[in-house]
Amino acid sequence: MPAQSQLASESLDALVRILDDVRLRGARSRSELVALSGLGRNVVSERVAQLLERGLLAEGAFRPSTGGRPPRGLAFNEDAGHVLVADLGATSIDVAATSLSGRLIRHRAERAQIDAGPDRVLAQVDALFDDLLRTGADLPGRLWGIGIGVPGPVEFRTGRPVSPPIMPGWDGYPVREHFAARHDVPVWVDNDVNVMALGEARAGVAAGHANVVVIKIGTGIGAGIISDGRLHRGAQGSAGDVGHIQVSDDPAVVCRCGNRGCLEALAGGAAIARAGEAAATDGTSVRLAALRATGRAISAEDVAREAAHGDPVAVDILQSAGHHVGAMLASIVNFFNPSLIVIGGGVSGSGDLLLAAIRQTVYGRSLPLATRDLVIQRSSLADRAGVIGASAMVVDQLFSREVLARWFDRGTPAGLREAVEPAA
Amino acid sequence: MPAQSQLASESLDALVRILDDVRLRGARSRSELVALSGLGRNVVSERVAQLLERGLLAEGAFRPSTGGRPPRGLAFNEDAGHVLVADLGATSIDVAATSLSGRLIRHRAERAQIDAGPDRVLAQVDALFDDLLRTGADLPGRLWGIGIGVPGPVEFRTGRPVSPPIMPGWDGYPVREHFAARHDVPVWVDNDVNVMALGEARAGVAAGHANVVVIKIGTGIGAGIISDGRLHRGAQGSAGDVGHIQVSDDPAVVCRCGNRGCLEALAGGAAIARAGEAAATDGTSVRLAALRATGRAISAEDVAREAAHGDPVAVDILQSAGHHVGAMLASIVNFFNPSLIVIGGGVSGSGDLLLAAIRQTVYGRSLPLATRDLVIQRSSLADRAGVIGASAMVVDQLFSREVLARWFDRGTPAGLREAVEPAA
Repeated sequence: MPAQSQLASESLDALVRILDDVRLRGARSRSELVALSGLGRNVVSERVAQLLERGLLAEGAFRPSTGGRPPRGLAFNEDAGHVLVADLGATSIDVAATSLSGRLIRHRAERAQIDAGPDRVLAQVDALFDDLLRTGADLPGRLWGIGIGVPGPVEFRTGRPVSPPIMPGWDGYPVREHFAARHDVPVWVDNDVNVMALGEARAGVAAGHANVVVIKIGTGIGAGIISDGRLHRGAQGSAGDVGHIQVSDDPAVVCRCGNRGCLEALAGGAAIARAGEAAATDGTSVRLAALRATGRAISAEDVAREAAHGDPVAVDILQSAGHHVGAMLASIVNFFNPSLIVIGGGVSGSGDLLLAAIRQTVYGRSLPLATRDLVIQRSSLADRAGVIGASAMVVDQLFSREVLARWFDRGTPAGLREAVEPAA
Repeated sequence: MPAQSQLASESLDALVRILDDVRLRGARSRSELVALSGLGRNVVSERVAQLLERGLLAEGAFRPSTGGRPPRGLAFNEDAGHVLVADLGATSIDVAATSLSGRLIRHRAERAQIDAGPDRVLAQVDALFDDLLRTGADLPGRLWGIGIGVPGPVEFRTGRPVSPPIMPGWDGYPVREHFAARHDVPVWVDNDVNVMALGEARAGVAAGHANVVVIKIGTGIGAGIISDGRLHRGAQGSAGDVGHIQVSDDPAVVCRCGNRGCLEALAGGAAIARAGEAAATDGTSVRLAALRATGRAISAEDVAREAAHGDPVAVDILQSAGHHVGAMLASIVNFFNPSLIVIGGGVSGSGDLLLAAIRQTVYGRSLPLATRDLVIQRSSLADRAGVIGASAMVVDQLFSREVLARWFDRGTPAGLREAVEPAA
């Protein structure tokens, strides 16, 4: 389809390239842009002028030069607008207002129950967003877009959850339309692990890696996949649903999905909590039994903490979970050949035992060539990966060729919500 | 790096887009190009004129029009040059001369032993290429490039095999340089299953699918992966090495790689032949025993043929292999969410038993969302997928932005070999 813009489409390609070179690849002058983009000097100058005029680039401090007239430094104007994001987990909501570079300006977290259904949960997000905006006299520019991560498969094109197993009532719910109607800006919705992977790729340990698998071990287990620098969502948007990969033949391991031997039933947060609860009840773990005696149920975090304190039963539970995650990852490493695996999510947060068990199994079972340069490490962003990634998702979409064409001439994407139906 | 071309780089983007829209997406007129590319009418006319002048596009027959002056039909001039390709297997070599659209002009197959080492095998390929060229007075245009598929991991950027398990003597061998020195054209080398996947994507059952896994079951087992329309090679180029994914805990299953329980040790051609040989020797299969009595070793093809004729032991062997392949694929489907799985390679060729067993296991074990629209089918190109894909690899590279910039002004990529070092 022809772009809805006065801009010649050739110019649009150059605009997108120059914006990305400045905001993502660190170009800081017209000469660096010429070198990085392969575009001619005149083209770069013309497009930079347009971007300066629209306020998307800014000309900053003088930079050192090798001689002659010192070139002026170019920078992405991350404060041309701001973005609202929400990262919905099984039992929590993180919201944030960010700059266009994903800098967190405000950040709030609350407990929540995703299984309370969309009406209650989205009302809670609305209240949190309103609070961010009300107390946000210092938010830069206008609101430019909204990004939402949800703990289940999403059809990215329409922004609707698709048969999400732990989200009763959300199947097909128009999450995009809910926020677009309230705020009159473009909205994008994706799986929580996908936005976490984007966050790690943009601002975390995955920066600079082109082929990455991000594993989130929380109540469930999921993966975000980056293939040649781009998020891989798969045919139905369900890529990365690794929690239900079969890793055991034991008929006693029954998963909530109805199958047997699923990874999640052996190594997810709920499985770890269940094993901890059993060790507390039958007294094989003195420390967990003492906790249980205070009257509360054992959580996966309890098991991880007691393992870090040396409780041998808790150590066994975590190591067993790590070996199961590692067995799954060993297959994935042979198939996908990533250069980095990032381990994140609530269960991964405490102690190195889980990570050590995962590493031992992956390095022991994968092909030597696939693990030669493979790094396995913990998320460096922890809780913030989701909101940072959701912000990156929004800004990347706003500055994509198709969407930029629809708002560049107007200078702001506000009011664009009807026009944005990005291709899958 | 700046492109080595007189062309403005903005023009280059438009050239590549227009060429791809005509040769890959069926645009047949300037109006269709305007609609498909989103480029302006003037830009399309200018670039089309350049491409006609260079002989890359041709203006053909008059096409029906809705009124007014009938537009002239545009076509990709697939006969502007020709390509030589070789698909090396464990025990065979397929070579072909193709047009720039991958049309097979000549095709030869010979038995060969990849483990005889690069000197002997490449001399055999040289002789086959010489034969194609000698008898090829009718080959269109000049030789524009060479594409090679080899049965092992390849570092795509340099065109060198990396620790290939069944290719002794080939580790790090400069395959690209061997052919570039003899023919003075650009050369690209990739894994045999990757080129097979490209072939299926361009001219076979995978056309129109963006997320595809192609499984080749021959002597070994490997996969070619297409992610969002592009070949996924992974960090070291070893992506798709699924033959050594562990699918069994049985300590008796020892693989040639040294690990236990590998898929290839249970379901590869060699494993099927071994099981057939055992059934022949101990007489549990009367038909295989009768074959064995003629004095020759049982092959995987023998087992497949006898299974198709109803031999119950041979049926068991194939079904067991299919279930193991299916178990591996069930994990891959959850992780990668393809819309299509293509089964190819020598073992898959005869009968539907193997395919049925694979389907049964995948649909039984994967998540419903991931299999909702999943198609599992046999290769439609069979032996020709490799050579067609190798040709597509060469032409796609020749018409990529980076490489086209280096030869467009000269009109031919011949003599370009020193300049081509495409990014990974």
